[in-house]
Amino acid sequence: MAGTPKTLTVELGERSYPIVIGEGLLDQAAEYLKQVGVPSKSPLLIVTDDHVAPLYLDKLVDVLTAGGYRVASAVVPAGESSKSLAAYDQLITRAIEEGLDRSSAILALGGGVVGDLAGFVAATYMRGIRFVQVPTTILAHDSSVGGKVAVNHPLAKNMIGVFHQPELVLYDVETLRTLPPREVRAGLSEMVKHGLIWDRDFAYWCQEHAPRLLDLDSEALAYGLEKGCAIKAQIVSRDERENDLRAILNLGHTLGHAIEAVAGYGQFLHGEAISVGMAAAARLGEERGAAGLYAETTAMLEALELPVTLPADMDTDALMAAMQRDKKFREGQMIFVVPLEVGRVEIAGDVKAEAVQSVIERLKA
Amino acid sequence: MAGTPKTLTVELGERSYPIVIGEGLLDQAAEYLKQVGVPSKSPLLIVTDDHVAPLYLDKLVDVLTAGGYRVASAVVPAGESSKSLAAYDQLITRAIEEGLDRSSAILALGGGVVGDLAGFVAATYMRGIRFVQVPTTILAHDSSVGGKVAVNHPLAKNMIGVFHQPELVLYDVETLRTLPPREVRAGLSEMVKHGLIWDRDFAYWCQEHAPRLLDLDSEALAYGLEKGCAIKAQIVSRDERENDLRAILNLGHTLGHAIEAVAGYGQFLHGEAISVGMAAAARLGEERGAAGLYAETTAMLEALELPVTLPADMDTDALMAAMQRDKKFREGQMIFVVPLEVGRVEIAGDVKAEAVQSVIERLKA
Repeated sequence: MAGTPKTLTVELGERSYPIVIGEGLLDQAAEYLKQVGVPSKSPLLIVTDDHVAPLYLDKLVDVLTAGGYRVASAVVPAGESSKSLAAYDQLITRAIEEGLDRSSAILALGGGVVGDLAGFVAATYMRGIRFVQVPTTILAHDSSVGGKVAVNHPLAKNMIGVFHQPELVLYDVETLRTLPPREVRAGLSEMVKHGLIWDRDFAYWCQEHAPRLLDLDSEALAYGLEKGCAIKAQIVSRDERENDLRAILNLGHTLGHAIEAVAGYGQFLHGEAISVGMAAAARLGEERGAAGLYAETTAMLEALELPVTLPADMDTDALMAAMQRDKKFREGQMIFVVPLEVGRVEIAGDVKAEAVQSVIERLKA
Repeated sequence: MAGTPKTLTVELGERSYPIVIGEGLLDQAAEYLKQVGVPSKSPLLIVTDDHVAPLYLDKLVDVLTAGGYRVASAVVPAGESSKSLAAYDQLITRAIEEGLDRSSAILALGGGVVGDLAGFVAATYMRGIRFVQVPTTILAHDSSVGGKVAVNHPLAKNMIGVFHQPELVLYDVETLRTLPPREVRAGLSEMVKHGLIWDRDFAYWCQEHAPRLLDLDSEALAYGLEKGCAIKAQIVSRDERENDLRAILNLGHTLGHAIEAVAGYGQFLHGEAISVGMAAAARLGEERGAAGLYAETTAMLEALELPVTLPADMDTDALMAAMQRDKKFREGQMIFVVPLEVGRVEIAGDVKAEAVQSVIERLKA
């Protein structure tokens, strides 16, 4: 992995942007910002969380300051509970106080929570300013690509948000070395998802290389992140605003979001919840004719040490109600991403609520 | 005015939309919604205020219900204080509770405050759903066209927002008959602004027909609204996201927003504040060489019974500070729209803070 960083491009016409993946990229952050046209006259705001701040914030501030930027920073509590309107309000106030103007950029240093929150601030501050993602988790290889930014509502996840593409994703894989093992596993959940929806070989590759991935082996990780980002970028380029194709990225997410909301944000990590959701989707797929799909899928997830069952006491009715509040419910129909085989899915509008209910019951450990 | 409604189109490629202006359009609201593709399977949410609700809400609900729509409504207190994150949060909650989905539409029935607030909800609910403007004020001929939606931050106006174009603007001029005289005057402020920035003849027309406009004469009003909307639509079509040209629409707004913030939202109506702002801009223009411009401009504003002075006790330093927090301040420069003559303005990046300060002092009554 060491050596030259890899650059992928998310092709979105005038909103196209680069994803740079490599080791030690934080050291070159100022150069990368200049390359994408972030001016040094206007102040920057780095948003991060209290897990990441002690590890990388000072370094990033120093590097950017040395590069001629004026830099402010804001630290939110780690975890999904920071994706709230209250945290959003505080960051907007902070941005005003620090004098951010229309030429300023907001940098998200951290995982999906920080990226989604900071991105929503950037998207709505003065009707939208520049946004740069500096992911420090595996999960963020998914969330930092594609421009979906949002905060949660107590009643439903990601309910408040917009599409706002970053100017740059700067992925320094050295930062992954400090990830707690549980977050490593949860991050791999989105990685294997990209295989499950789009690339059969990549899904099997993830299973085969699970021990190396869990061990943060440089070479395996680099390949997996690049491949995952590339699949996501391809899909987003074809359907930026989720009119049709992009919805396949939601495999496991309809139930996954409901699990997160019902268990209380933070009880299940996002990657864990969607792992269970993908197991449920595989079961649905099998019931609709894909023989052996459930065993095949759960074997992959379990190789990555991801959960595929629900606690016995989780309230099925509450999960069903949460799913009906989900964004993927439209004009009275439940929209479900259902796998046809490993590497291929369909967006099914005809899934019956009873079928989902029965699958949930069978997932309970 | 009676008879066939007029339809203008805001040309924005795939985001183009019609502005329909006419009498009795509320009665045909369901047909117009169907024409622009709002499906009847998903619930609608009408947002209005407690001044407009008693006058037109029941009627609009009845018409839409008769047309096959499921309709919920939310009433906010009239006035600028409803353009807050708190009111926004309540409306998002309401939308979730009423089961709005990605195919739903949010209708803004009212003036600029309701339009900006409801529009920001529509723009960010599930990352953006359909939005329909049903303006009931003269001012809204400006605010309902162009897709700027926002709420205020206690430190600065319209600080939190995005661009989100409506599907339709349905302008029933019958609703203007119930406007309080102060709001009529304030609305005419944006109308004459469209003349001052773009169309010399229209500016003089507003002055000449001021008595008829203030009297809500059907024919004069119809012409003025159509012309105002048409000018705004032309400018927005050329520069949707305010990269350059669109900024001329901000004539009077840099100081105007500061007056609103410093006086406390609601003390000055928006149209009143920008009238004072346009007087200030004319004075700046005259100081930069446009002989006679101040007298010419204030005569127009005074013909429309609009204020052109500031209270003697208004704090100049507070106004200056508020202007520096404004969105139109960028990379350390104050950006000011300065008139060159009636009907033509420039966007000046070289206006000195001292010049603005001195103009403010001279505006004090």
